[in-house]
Amino acid sequence: MNNKRHKHGGDIYSEACTLDYSANINPLGPPSSVIEAVYRSMEQIVNYPDVQCRKLCHAIAEHEYVKEEQVICTNGASELLYAFAAALKPKKALLLEPGFAEYEAALSAVGCEIFYYPLGEEKGYALDLAYLEALSDDLDMIILCNPNNPTGVLIQQPLLVRIAEKCEKYGIHFLLDECFHEFLMAPDSYSMRTFLERFPHLFLVDAFTKIYAIPGLRLGYGLSADADLMEKIRDVIQPWSVSIPAQEAGIAALSEDTYVHNTRWLIREERKYLARALHLLEMETFDSQANYLFFKGPEDLEEQCQKRGLLIRDCSNYRGLSKGYFRIAVRTREENDQLIKIFQDIIREKQKESGAIYGWRK
Amino acid sequence: MNNKRHKHGGDIYSEACTLDYSANINPLGPPSSVIEAVYRSMEQIVNYPDVQCRKLCHAIAEHEYVKEEQVICTNGASELLYAFAAALKPKKALLLEPGFAEYEAALSAVGCEIFYYPLGEEKGYALDLAYLEALSDDLDMIILCNPNNPTGVLIQQPLLVRIAEKCEKYGIHFLLDECFHEFLMAPDSYSMRTFLERFPHLFLVDAFTKIYAIPGLRLGYGLSADADLMEKIRDVIQPWSVSIPAQEAGIAALSEDTYVHNTRWLIREERKYLARALHLLEMETFDSQANYLFFKGPEDLEEQCQKRGLLIRDCSNYRGLSKGYFRIAVRTREENDQLIKIFQDIIREKQKESGAIYGWRK
Repeated sequence: MNNKRHKHGGDIYSEACTLDYSANINPLGPPSSVIEAVYRSMEQIVNYPDVQCRKLCHAIAEHEYVKEEQVICTNGASELLYAFAAALKPKKALLLEPGFAEYEAALSAVGCEIFYYPLGEEKGYALDLAYLEALSDDLDMIILCNPNNPTGVLIQQPLLVRIAEKCEKYGIHFLLDECFHEFLMAPDSYSMRTFLERFPHLFLVDAFTKIYAIPGLRLGYGLSADADLMEKIRDVIQPWSVSIPAQEAGIAALSEDTYVHNTRWLIREERKYLARALHLLEMETFDSQANYLFFKGPEDLEEQCQKRGLLIRDCSNYRGLSKGYFRIAVRTREENDQLIKIFQDIIREKQKESGAIYGWRK
Repeated sequence: MNNKRHKHGGDIYSEACTLDYSANINPLGPPSSVIEAVYRSMEQIVNYPDVQCRKLCHAIAEHEYVKEEQVICTNGASELLYAFAAALKPKKALLLEPGFAEYEAALSAVGCEIFYYPLGEEKGYALDLAYLEALSDDLDMIILCNPNNPTGVLIQQPLLVRIAEKCEKYGIHFLLDECFHEFLMAPDSYSMRTFLERFPHLFLVDAFTKIYAIPGLRLGYGLSADADLMEKIRDVIQPWSVSIPAQEAGIAALSEDTYVHNTRWLIREERKYLARALHLLEMETFDSQANYLFFKGPEDLEEQCQKRGLLIRDCSNYRGLSKGYFRIAVRTREENDQLIKIFQDIIREKQKESGAIYGWRK
């Protein structure tokens, strides 16, 4: 087996670590109601899961203000990416560079030819109007993530609407990953869920993983007004893909309004705090609105962190990036102070080595 | 959504029932060590699952006497069926008739042309040597289940070896589903796991679902000596497909030797007990060696059972079968007595209606 086949954040199994900043998970941990729901679900695991996830779909539909038949639940959002690709078998797709590596993996699994739209560092990795020009009628699908991963940079809704319009016109399937969207202060101003019926080519992907801090449980979902596409996706997924604990956890999670509210405020404050600390260490940050921060630092930063038991995400294996780009999660003040302390130690050592008084750049 | 798209046993969500005999699950219920492992795993669900399921693969490899790299874990055995089809994209496949419907669903999802080898009622639904003649070099794959579902009839190992030899010669992928194999009194005499290296085209599918009574948790695995094929299968599955609770449950389950031993004895005794009761009710049974019993009864038996809160599996939607064929799980004595009581009531009513003194056949 190949350790490198899916390099990603949160791989605490390959690296010894005491502090994991490589996975973008809600630092508050899973709500206790979710844990309790899983405990209670143990009485049911002697049964097969409901193939149609009826109760969960109903709860999601209410939460998202969509129709129940517009919801499909999956074994994590990742399963949906693979199923979407398998159902549509796109020949040509356009992805962002840098972007989440699983998009490429899921499309490659069905032999799709992939083109990349580079996000420029000079523009702070923001998607701009020029992207519209890249949408040609020979494309079968595009994938965007809002806010983008690993940069955390937002795409404004008016631009998303123009993209969706062009996709509709050219028959391009538009998969929009909103997995980090619940961490935003005003998620409704960015989500495209109210546009589902207007744009049948629009397919939204969302997950319980990050916002409810349950990546180990596997629960994601898709939203679309295209009933035929939903059928095709169901055809390529095994019927019992969402476990009973995951279904029950999802239903419980959707009542956790206060938890989500508190998360948003925590993330906003701590992201600012971390950004300021990185700035003082002369590490350049970009305008993340998500629960993670993308920045430039010393090329061996990940290695140095690992020596100190801290796992951060080295982004050099993302397309369009190179050595010296990193992503860290935004966590609680206590943990963030630990991370800052480790960063400070590393920079101080570098200063000693290079003889610099300020800064670490040679 | 279509209620009928995956008609299967254990769908307690569509039908009101107090006694479920439609799903083939160990009547002892999940071992307590498995439930405890899931409870304990809640401390870890804030992490992503190990992509490679290292500890679980290690435990399975030890349990099955195979190499770790010959094991792949999946979100239930069903995921493996879909992934196997997606990875190989077979053009022509041969299935048994009757057989588990998900084989057809998984192959159809990749547009495979499917041929059916009929198991004759006159031969008690046993697979015989004539099957070898049906293996031609234009086939890409075959699927067998041992013991077969829904009949419970065993395929003897010498025949399996001859089938595997012919598959090897013709380059046919041989997927052998051993999901019910742990219920056999002498499973090692039937399993093909010792032949993996001799037959690289042989692929074994197994599940924790039935024997450890955890269908709600989703955990299956595949065994193969074909490293390239294993890679291809991994390519079409999302990396985090096996949840942390499932991985931990699996590791705990594999220590439950006594539980499995007790299960085998219980199933053997109760299968005999049920078969004798059905015989007395003039329902013809076949030679099941599994934890379920296949039989012929009054055409409206399922309907009549449902009215009395008992769910049994009407097999009329299986290819090659028609109205009047049923499958019931083998459960505990107390439950089996309840089922027999309900069957007796139904037959007695029929006798009254038809004016017969014995029997229910018109």
